[in-house]
Amino acid sequence: MKIAVDAMGGDFAPEQIVFGAIRAAKKYDCEIVLVGDEEKIQEVLHREKSGKTLKISVHHASEVIEMGEHPVTAVRRKKDSSIVVATGLVRDGICDAVVSAGSTGAAVASALLILGRIKGIDRATIATPIPNLKGGATLLMDSGANVDSKPKHLLQTAVMGSVYSQYVFDVAKPRVGLLNIGEEETKGNEQALATYPLLKNMTTIDFAGNAEGRDITKGNFDVVVCDGFVGNVVLKFAEGLAKTILKLIREAIREGGFFAKLGALLLAPVLKKLAKRVDVAEYGGAPLLGVDGCCIICHGSSNAKAMCSAIGVASEYVEENILAHIRDNIEKEEMLTNDCENK
Amino acid sequence: MKIAVDAMGGDFAPEQIVFGAIRAAKKYDCEIVLVGDEEKIQEVLHREKSGKTLKISVHHASEVIEMGEHPVTAVRRKKDSSIVVATGLVRDGICDAVVSAGSTGAAVASALLILGRIKGIDRATIATPIPNLKGGATLLMDSGANVDSKPKHLLQTAVMGSVYSQYVFDVAKPRVGLLNIGEEETKGNEQALATYPLLKNMTTIDFAGNAEGRDITKGNFDVVVCDGFVGNVVLKFAEGLAKTILKLIREAIREGGFFAKLGALLLAPVLKKLAKRVDVAEYGGAPLLGVDGCCIICHGSSNAKAMCSAIGVASEYVEENILAHIRDNIEKEEMLTNDCENK
Repeated sequence: MKIAVDAMGGDFAPEQIVFGAIRAAKKYDCEIVLVGDEEKIQEVLHREKSGKTLKISVHHASEVIEMGEHPVTAVRRKKDSSIVVATGLVRDGICDAVVSAGSTGAAVASALLILGRIKGIDRATIATPIPNLKGGATLLMDSGANVDSKPKHLLQTAVMGSVYSQYVFDVAKPRVGLLNIGEEETKGNEQALATYPLLKNMTTIDFAGNAEGRDITKGNFDVVVCDGFVGNVVLKFAEGLAKTILKLIREAIREGGFFAKLGALLLAPVLKKLAKRVDVAEYGGAPLLGVDGCCIICHGSSNAKAMCSAIGVASEYVEENILAHIRDNIEKEEMLTNDCENK
Repeated sequence: MKIAVDAMGGDFAPEQIVFGAIRAAKKYDCEIVLVGDEEKIQEVLHREKSGKTLKISVHHASEVIEMGEHPVTAVRRKKDSSIVVATGLVRDGICDAVVSAGSTGAAVASALLILGRIKGIDRATIATPIPNLKGGATLLMDSGANVDSKPKHLLQTAVMGSVYSQYVFDVAKPRVGLLNIGEEETKGNEQALATYPLLKNMTTIDFAGNAEGRDITKGNFDVVVCDGFVGNVVLKFAEGLAKTILKLIREAIREGGFFAKLGALLLAPVLKKLAKRVDVAEYGGAPLLGVDGCCIICHGSSNAKAMCSAIGVASEYVEENILAHIRDNIEKEEMLTNDCENK
């Protein structure tokens, strides 16, 4: 298995990306192709001596797509950018997956333009794992690739999320929920009201009804399906809230005097263990489901650990043959094409 | 000033509601009318001796609207329910405000059916204060009264939120943001894209651009305007996340042995102080803005402290004459009726 890694994407590229690749090459049974500025990548690889003996190669790409650029325009113009070249390696069958912590828009645009979509899928969606109270992760999807989704898009999202949860998170029968503002079938906006009865009729997923905001971290659903607008707001809100809470606690301890500081010191080990358990870096990356190839999207602030996890996610995606399972299930759901073509 | 309190609404009614009213009667310069089952209310009042000498009266109402009931149907049928009677006291000019921790749907339906809307306002919205990093609160609105809002509804929401933030939270020039999935004007769903340029043209508010999910707790906006679907999901997500974090920390401490327990004990005072600072109970209630009367909606799990704060919010609402300010500003925004009538 060969995984292409966009070495130039992310706030800490190329250093943390290369370090992450080195970790992953030691941990997983896969070959890694680092795509980007060869000179810069080699410089980092040489700092880490062990890098030389691992199954890591470098594929040069002269350009980089920056965060502010318009994704589609940039992907079309910068043919030799790291993300475009890395995605091309997957299209050409040289690599099995692409992993990037660069501009999410550029990664999505590259995947859509270069790999295309799976037959029967109208829109690709990002599935973000959110650590939950039961010790697992709830897939929140779409978490930002599409807005103004039609019911049929949400049905396709449900099928893809269910497959991913089953094969990558080993959930035998994933409980799929529709994100809504109440439990009852009669609650919600037009989109949710139109989607609920269709989800209920699906045969390849276990639809468990409406999920409310509080259910996302509760763990009573394995997949929570929503429009990318809501998903993106929730995800960024969670990020902001977590940072706010941490900052307030640090301030409180700083101002709290000796006993507070001692208390914090004594509590540190258990809190560290807990932080590890809910650390999103442990989950590494979010798959872009629906494109015809494996594409894993990482947070811009990903460090080596997160990149390593993301490469692990990619290798599991490929090993479990997620693409084939999505194809099969989408075919089975004839209703997707028959019943709700124009909804 | 007289404030009607729905004594039968909420998970801990009537006890915590009555206790909250007693606290408020001592703290604020207002008279409180407890509405509900007289016998039950008097029983709680008598337990608290000081209750007798305070400016608290009881107005009997024989029925209660339960959480599961359909709001509009219940409000129409149960004419002698505590929330309907309490709201009627405001309509009849006997009371200046109504406060309820019962079914949000029933409180909203009562307010709309009995008090009606302010001229120029098409939809009432709930403005929920979210504690932020700057030590203040960001108003998230609408947080659940309406879904599928049109741009004109969001503009009206912006005007009302700005007024409320200015007079109740003492923000001289409230920064109003539009909740969206990116900072740029070109980002978002159809609703956001259509609303942004209209907000930019408004004269009575200080529109500060798009707010992303992470901005809600950051404190760089005083009012964040959104559709009630998104607002409700975010609010319930926050609630779930807070509970999840607390539960995980408690579990970690329990399993962490002696030093972890000692650490927690030493840290407790600063964490308690912090918890007080971000405690939503400090904010007590969320106003239902846009109805022609003061209606404060409380969380179903409100305790005496939260009820007391909510009554404080109501008295400030009345004292600051929020209704008149909303009317003035809505009139000033001629664009609301001229430019975007059919958007």
